[in-house]
Amino acid sequence: MSETFKAPEGDFRGHDRQSVWSQTPDPELTEIGPGTPCGEYQRRFWLPVAMTDQVSDLPYRIRILGEDLVLFREPGEGKLGLTHLHCAHRNMSLEFGIIEPGGIRCSYHGWKYGLDGTVLETPCEPPASQVKKKACLGAYPVIEYKGLAFAYMGPHAEQPPFPVIDTFDEEGDEMLPSLIKSPCNWLQVMENAWDPFHVVYLHTLAVRSQFIDAFAEMPMIEFHEAQFGEFYTNVRRVNDFVWIRVHDHMMPSFTQNGAHFPVPDRSRYFGRCGLSRWVVPIDDTHTQVVTWRHFRDGDDPKGLTDKSKVGYGSTDFYGQDPDRPYEMRQRDPGDYDAWVSQGPRNIHSRENLSFTDRGVAKVRRMLRKEIRSLADGNPVKHPTDDYDGILPTYAGDTILRIPLQEGRDDGAVLKEISFAVAGIFKDGDKQPIEDRKGFIIDALKTYEASWT
Amino acid sequence: MSETFKAPEGDFRGHDRQSVWSQTPDPELTEIGPGTPCGEYQRRFWLPVAMTDQVSDLPYRIRILGEDLVLFREPGEGKLGLTHLHCAHRNMSLEFGIIEPGGIRCSYHGWKYGLDGTVLETPCEPPASQVKKKACLGAYPVIEYKGLAFAYMGPHAEQPPFPVIDTFDEEGDEMLPSLIKSPCNWLQVMENAWDPFHVVYLHTLAVRSQFIDAFAEMPMIEFHEAQFGEFYTNVRRVNDFVWIRVHDHMMPSFTQNGAHFPVPDRSRYFGRCGLSRWVVPIDDTHTQVVTWRHFRDGDDPKGLTDKSKVGYGSTDFYGQDPDRPYEMRQRDPGDYDAWVSQGPRNIHSRENLSFTDRGVAKVRRMLRKEIRSLADGNPVKHPTDDYDGILPTYAGDTILRIPLQEGRDDGAVLKEISFAVAGIFKDGDKQPIEDRKGFIIDALKTYEASWT
Amino acid sequence: MSETFKAPEGDFRGHDRQSVWSQTPDPELTEIGPGTPCGEYQRRFWLPVAMTDQVSDLPYRIRILGEDLVLFREPGEGKLGLTHLHCAHRNMSLEFGIIEPGGIRCSYHGWKYGLDGTVLETPCEPPASQVKKKACLGAYPVIEYKGLAFAYMGPHAEQPPFPVIDTFDEEGDEMLPSLIKSPCNWLQVMENAWDPFHVVYLHTLAVRSQFIDAFAEMPMIEFHEAQFGEFYTNVRRVNDFVWIRVHDHMMPSFTQNGAHFPVPDRSRYFGRCGLSRWVVPIDDTHTQVVTWRHFRDGDDPKGLTDKSKVGYGSTDFYGQDPDRPYEMRQRDPGDYDAWVSQGPRNIHSRENLSFTDRGVAKVRRMLRKEIRSLADGNPVKHPTDDYDGILPTYAGDTILRIPLQEGRDDGAVLKEISFAVAGIFKDGDKQPIEDRKGFIIDALKTYEASWT
Repeated sequence: MSETFKAPEGDFRGHDRQSVWSQTPDPELTEIGPGTPCGEYQRRFWLPVAMTDQVSDLPYRIRILGEDLVLFREPGEGKLGLTHLHCAHRNMSLEFGIIEPGGIRCSYHGWKYGLDGTVLETPCEPPASQVKKKACLGAYPVIEYKGLAFAYMGPHAEQPPFPVIDTFDEEGDEMLPSLIKSPCNWLQVMENAWDPFHVVYLHTLAVRSQFIDAFAEMPMIEFHEAQFGEFYTNVRRVNDFVWIRVHDHMMPSFTQNGAHFPVPDRSRYFGRCGLSRWVVPIDDTHTQVVTWRHFRDGDDPKGLTDKSKVGYGSTDFYGQDPDRPYEMRQRDPGDYDAWVSQGPRNIHSRENLSFTDRGVAKVRRMLRKEIRSLADGNPVKHPTDDYDGILPTYAGDTILRIPLQEGRDDGAVLKEISFAVAGIFKDGDKQPIEDRKGFIIDALKTYEASWT
Repeated sequence: MSETFKAPEGDFRGHDRQSVWSQTPDPELTEIGPGTPCGEYQRRFWLPVAMTDQVSDLPYRIRILGEDLVLFREPGEGKLGLTHLHCAHRNMSLEFGIIEPGGIRCSYHGWKYGLDGTVLETPCEPPASQVKKKACLGAYPVIEYKGLAFAYMGPHAEQPPFPVIDTFDEEGDEMLPSLIKSPCNWLQVMENAWDPFHVVYLHTLAVRSQFIDAFAEMPMIEFHEAQFGEFYTNVRRVNDFVWIRVHDHMMPSFTQNGAHFPVPDRSRYFGRCGLSRWVVPIDDTHTQVVTWRHFRDGDDPKGLTDKSKVGYGSTDFYGQDPDRPYEMRQRDPGDYDAWVSQGPRNIHSRENLSFTDRGVAKVRRMLRKEIRSLADGNPVKHPTDDYDGILPTYAGDTILRIPLQEGRDDGAVLKEISFAVAGIFKDGDKQPIEDRKGFIIDALKTYEASWT
Repeated sequence: MSETFKAPEGDFRGHDRQSVWSQTPDPELTEIGPGTPCGEYQRRFWLPVAMTDQVSDLPYRIRILGEDLVLFREPGEGKLGLTHLHCAHRNMSLEFGIIEPGGIRCSYHGWKYGLDGTVLETPCEPPASQVKKKACLGAYPVIEYKGLAFAYMGPHAEQPPFPVIDTFDEEGDEMLPSLIKSPCNWLQVMENAWDPFHVVYLHTLAVRSQFIDAFAEMPMIEFHEAQFGEFYTNVRRVNDFVWIRVHDHMMPSFTQNGAHFPVPDRSRYFGRCGLSRWVVPIDDTHTQVVTWRHFRDGDDPKGLTDKSKVGYGSTDFYGQDPDRPYEMRQRDPGDYDAWVSQGPRNIHSRENLSFTDRGVAKVRRMLRKEIRSLADGNPVKHPTDDYDGILPTYAGDTILRIPLQEGRDDGAVLKEISFAVAGIFKDGDKQPIEDRKGFIIDALKTYEASWT
């Protein structure tokens, strides 16, 4: 019996590391309520707050950045309104309000508000009543496009233009909106997009190829700057091909990645993004991922997509939502399981960031800098600053036939290609918008040919 | 595309008004736990704590004023007992206790308590044990009447007489009890009864007539004092008739209103209340509305009542409970939706009180004054102070045939009638109780005739 | 009507005793999280953390002493590993990890940990990465025996030997494990075992005999010391027999009691325990009761056991789990209802401890002393201190034919027998282990015969 009760040997440090249980989240990057530094920073941007197919003829209650709101479509001109949830009179919820042309009316005593929150009518009051002038309801402007409603929740005087991106209106591109909620802080969901190495493990080597087998190869990552923000090149050799995958990032949380199911077995020039994605805080411990999935001929040579799954609460690629049995999530975990299981608010002091976490570290530094800059009274930087037109972005897949170069270290070759392709993309910005795509494709072909 | 992304114009003040998210409830009027000023004030009154049809041969666990309690009927004399939930010995819950003649016994070690919480038996203790004298269980006296159990939870020495009201025992009146819970603070539920204007909007103009069409007319409201507390007259002209609806209020939360489905198309003299109603705090964010619905011949000429719906968790008029789908609540909100959606505890600093909120403002002032008076060490005022018999109340509907008076402003006429009818009701107090009703009816008829 | 509204008379002290609602639990004995004095004390012992039949080929998430952990069986040698839940790299939960020979691998970026938490692999990192040496995962050693997994969660350097008990491996004894959770603090569950008087009331007199009728008799209780800790003798006269039931206790929460369904109608010598039981804190307000039920010929003469009910979430005797309708729990409450209904954390300042609570008071004193001693820097006392072999314990039922003694007070007789039998058990410790049982049985027979 004594052998049975012999304790295992080893350097067990559970007790030594019990500090993990008292460490706390980083408030500067994770608290987003009204008045918080990060909350104020996020409020300087247009954020997608809802899918418009969820807005019926009834008020639609939502929560964004810790604020309870009601979104509605007034039946006059069909415009969307977004106001604070509680009536400015006696605080009854406007989710029970009556939508009318030009605004919304509280059902308790009939106060009617315009789309901008102005009190239009107070029907029970005597004619001399001045309360209409004194009171107002908090409201935010809304822009609607391809199934998404975007709001600006910052100070009215600092409202930036909507940053229109080249990928929002391309010929031959069908864009389908999706919105999925996660019970965790926004930052860990956003960081997932700055972490190209989890694709190797979580999506490929861990259990099975959730996307394509080629993701198993360790990529070479280089970071670059652009007018819209930052991007990185994600380069892999696949036999005689070099696959350059570009990932865009625009502050505070917009990202675009390459195609979801590419097959790097032939040349491809300036293939574009599979996803345009915002990570929007609901509150400190809930987040909505709002996306447009792009569907174009050639993006999915193996036919692995299913458009019918893209919508409210689900999308067409694995692991983005909780609607899988716990055992399936354990046996084949996805992105959702990764970021949600980091906890309601991930605790950075428990982490051991390493070489592969350069992107995560970089985005935290950038955020921290911008948040502090705003808190210090500086204006917020926008991609539209000193820029008028549609913003050119780069995300997508380019595949060039460039075999192994005899006598050269392939790492050095891939690095050289990373910067050369990034340079071609940036040169494209200087072209007239109607010539840009052709210019980039031609330049990529010329560059590819230069290696033969 | 640029038109699409143009932000709407208007004076959007959502960000300016983000202070609404950090404002907090008013503790003086909304905190009711043990030791709080409002809690101590409410504990000076007899409050209905349960419907007796919920009390079986088992202990019945309830929560009142933030205290966990057990209500039970001892089988000896059939009396109700009400004690603190946890046994005074080792804190096992008495919801698992054994009810016996004269008291309740804890099932853990058999301690038995009398109805007043005295320890009667400690069967496992040796005969010499003195613990019976040292220990006692918190208990409150209970009065039972027509299906309701009332308790007094204040200091024993300050226990007032039960304030018996004239409407509690009228010939030809069938009284049915009801108890419905709401997940919000007591005050916002109570204030609803001090707000005659929501009847115009929420119950009539907002969506449909939840009661009768005549409520759509804006009423003239006047406040008056009475022995039992306060009342207001709620006067409307309906063609050749003047409809005087009287609403009683007795501190801290008792109200009586007129009939639920009156038809003001003929004279009616001293019709009585449709509802006697208490709003009892369960805790700071839960409330029970306890009522007797009165059913008398003539109160419901159109046959809109349904006695079978009056009971635990429901009643016979619309919008008092949550048992409606969310969409139905959105399309046709009722009182429950109004007060619950103000939030767990309504935030007064967010409100914009106006002319029509005079009743709400008045009852808050009255409560604040009485709460502070008690906190300052003064005795609490009771309607039974210096008054011996059954308390006369006034609530109900009187309808007088008084056509428009040529050459006189009708507002002035209605105001004159408000005070004249209130005066007749008050004069009735001076009559012997058995003559009172006849006196009032005769005086009303004489007054009506004086206008011809 | 006035009689109806007359308040009941009595000394109602509910308001006087409202202090019960603001009293708070005793942190010294009830807080068990990392770094708390009681938590540190409990971490010095081997505690059963799970039933091994719950551990499949997937990681098994558990919570012990306020720590979130993952238990898994690595498929190489079949050993159990127990680590902190969150990966030391980016905090993804290891409940989604991949179990491999020798350890567990996080599915996010593939870090692999050994059973002791050492980082074995970081596959996405470049070869020069030093992060493996810097980082480690908290892990605890595990011992597995007869369906239970035991862990030591204290400082590695202070790890005691596993205290092996004589009852863990007896011939003819079938041991079945069980684990049942309760939503309350560990202390109130543990104290239940130190309270022999609740057996009289809760289990016998309150409603019905949940075990056997003989428990209705009030026992004589005497406390004694032993190598393994404390034990008490629980002595009752049953006609011509004296029934000596022995109850063991080993710090911090291990207890053994007698048979569950004994019939004291004939002599029995050194019958052994029906249950070996640990009360393990999940967190401050949740507890798991982990037991082995012992099944031997002769322990259950009436055939009241049902082995098939013993397992995860249930056992073969009444009232240990919540899976009974609320009304059944009210009509026939069990141990679970007693300890859970004391509240999430029982409030000692509300109690009135008395003569029958000597055991409860004693175990609290002992715990407080040991907790303070550790906090003062002293080493923790273990039953294995200065003791090498298998620990002899005493729990079980001995029944001796000793009729009433003419001319002697039976209380004095029972007390004398309590100490005499305890003495025989203690003398047994001095025998070689293989002779011990025979020695005790012979000594008991001789002692019984001495009374004839």
